[in-house]
Amino acid sequence: MVAYKSVTVFAPASVANLSCGFDIMGFALEGTGDRVVLSLSEGEENDILELTGTYAGHVPAERKRNSAGVAVDAMLAAIGKLNMSIHIKLEKNLPVGSGLGSSASGAAAAVYALNVMMGSPFEIKELIPFAMEGERAACGTAHADNVAPSLLGGFVLIRSYDPLDIISITTPCELYCVVIHPHIEVKTSDARRVLKKEFPLQVVTRQSANTASLMTGILTCNYDLIGRSMNDLLAEPRRTMLIPGFLAAKNYAIEAGAIGCGISGSGPSVFALCNNREITTKITSAMQKGFSEAGLTSDIIISSLNAPGARLINKEIF
Amino acid sequence: MVAYKSVTVFAPASVANLSCGFDIMGFALEGTGDRVVLSLSEGEENDILELTGTYAGHVPAERKRNSAGVAVDAMLAAIGKLNMSIHIKLEKNLPVGSGLGSSASGAAAAVYALNVMMGSPFEIKELIPFAMEGERAACGTAHADNVAPSLLGGFVLIRSYDPLDIISITTPCELYCVVIHPHIEVKTSDARRVLKKEFPLQVVTRQSANTASLMTGILTCNYDLIGRSMNDLLAEPRRTMLIPGFLAAKNYAIEAGAIGCGISGSGPSVFALCNNREITTKITSAMQKGFSEAGLTSDIIISSLNAPGARLINKEIF
Repeated sequence: MVAYKSVTVFAPASVANLSCGFDIMGFALEGTGDRVVLSLSEGEENDILELTGTYAGHVPAERKRNSAGVAVDAMLAAIGKLNMSIHIKLEKNLPVGSGLGSSASGAAAAVYALNVMMGSPFEIKELIPFAMEGERAACGTAHADNVAPSLLGGFVLIRSYDPLDIISITTPCELYCVVIHPHIEVKTSDARRVLKKEFPLQVVTRQSANTASLMTGILTCNYDLIGRSMNDLLAEPRRTMLIPGFLAAKNYAIEAGAIGCGISGSGPSVFALCNNREITTKITSAMQKGFSEAGLTSDIIISSLNAPGARLINKEIF
Repeated sequence: MVAYKSVTVFAPASVANLSCGFDIMGFALEGTGDRVVLSLSEGEENDILELTGTYAGHVPAERKRNSAGVAVDAMLAAIGKLNMSIHIKLEKNLPVGSGLGSSASGAAAAVYALNVMMGSPFEIKELIPFAMEGERAACGTAHADNVAPSLLGGFVLIRSYDPLDIISITTPCELYCVVIHPHIEVKTSDARRVLKKEFPLQVVTRQSANTASLMTGILTCNYDLIGRSMNDLLAEPRRTMLIPGFLAAKNYAIEAGAIGCGISGSGPSVFALCNNREITTKITSAMQKGFSEAGLTSDIIISSLNAPGARLINKEIF
């Protein structure tokens, strides 16, 4: 049943909560992400997790609390192979609490690798629920708006969690994303706590109108409409206070030609969309200036909106 | 400045609140609607409203309370011509309190006619705010989800009311609509009163996800996705009780091959979508059966989703 002795997989970072698309939209990013090496363990131990990479010291070393470990074990449980000894080596390249889908990336890479190792019994989409269990361990809720784009690539819409209904969107438009990660940490739990619990009818209809318009813009390449629709009434008004420099960065991004700008995931990373790769440099400088005025240094990611998802890097047969 | 002595315009009925698209989506219907004849009045009286048609006795005869009269006067006020003597003849063909956009149809026809009469100083889209004033008079709120499709035709998305941002969608798909109007009246005010005032975060995100998915389905001809997305969490759960036979009609419609089914406007009319004109007859019978089991007779409208909007029927020069 086991097809490979060792499998190495990369899964990208991702932007969740596309402004009005709070909790329901996300997209994959190019270039950066976690790597996982799964190998059949020599011994009898089936709870090994090895951590490497820049952010190895920032995630739980205990397999039962690490998103990659939990995701692998959820998948092993589903196929009745919990007794298999699988060594997980997680190369943690994505900063934690950054809003870049760090825990999702590790979980996505891990389940993708396990699927390859087992001879691909699952379609990629079917791996999402296992990776979501990793999210539950890392963040408290089994959300899919990072793991789905990290696994599938591109732009993803989550229509429903019960039943899970995930739609992959390939936009026909020229859309690029600049992500700025300012060097502070925002805990997902804090970002959740500041949200209101109840909303008036008008907020529901306005948010719904914006998500419908955003999809219309993304599918018809109406860039101006995309910009007008990137208007979040749920999270952004509350989370702005958690991210010093965000408002300035947003204003500078728009001035520099961005279509729209919002918080990536639960922050502190922020993203801006534009329809021309050439102006991404200008937008990047503009946004970094906003954070630097607030005393924060920052990293950057520049990506298209049709970035590839998790992929095999290496596999070893017996 | 006045280009024509008399202008006759037809404006179609419409379906508002496309299930999850509560308050933000609507589309025009083929074949049925109100007619308005505007003529420069001989005398000095500038408050004349004449009513004809099947439902003449069901709408306010007073110009200041009738949606067509109010819309015309709002437009005259905007162009500083409130003292113009214009005779409005409204042929009221659409039943009132039916969920078919009856008050909107009269208002749309009236402002379209006045625009032609004045030599078309406004684009059609710019007439929407005037027609919305007619809705305010008729229903208490200046909503646009009937007047916009009645004026523009086709499928319309209202992204925002402030500022007014209305998007015309031409779906590339084969989409047809069956509308059944059961013979009872539902007052818009009653339909508004039964709604909840506050909604938990999860309802906001689920409704938003469905509107985003519905637009995706309509723009990519994913008929199954359209059906899954036609799931309203705001109005339908509360308004179902106001429309005897609706649930049966909905189940029968789906059994007969409809993609989805919901309440048209604030009811009692209900609509079903399908992707094949040939099965509209079967769906019509199925839905009428649902209402007939509840003791209700009904009328029908069958239309495509790209139906034309308001249009000139006749004009007379001096």
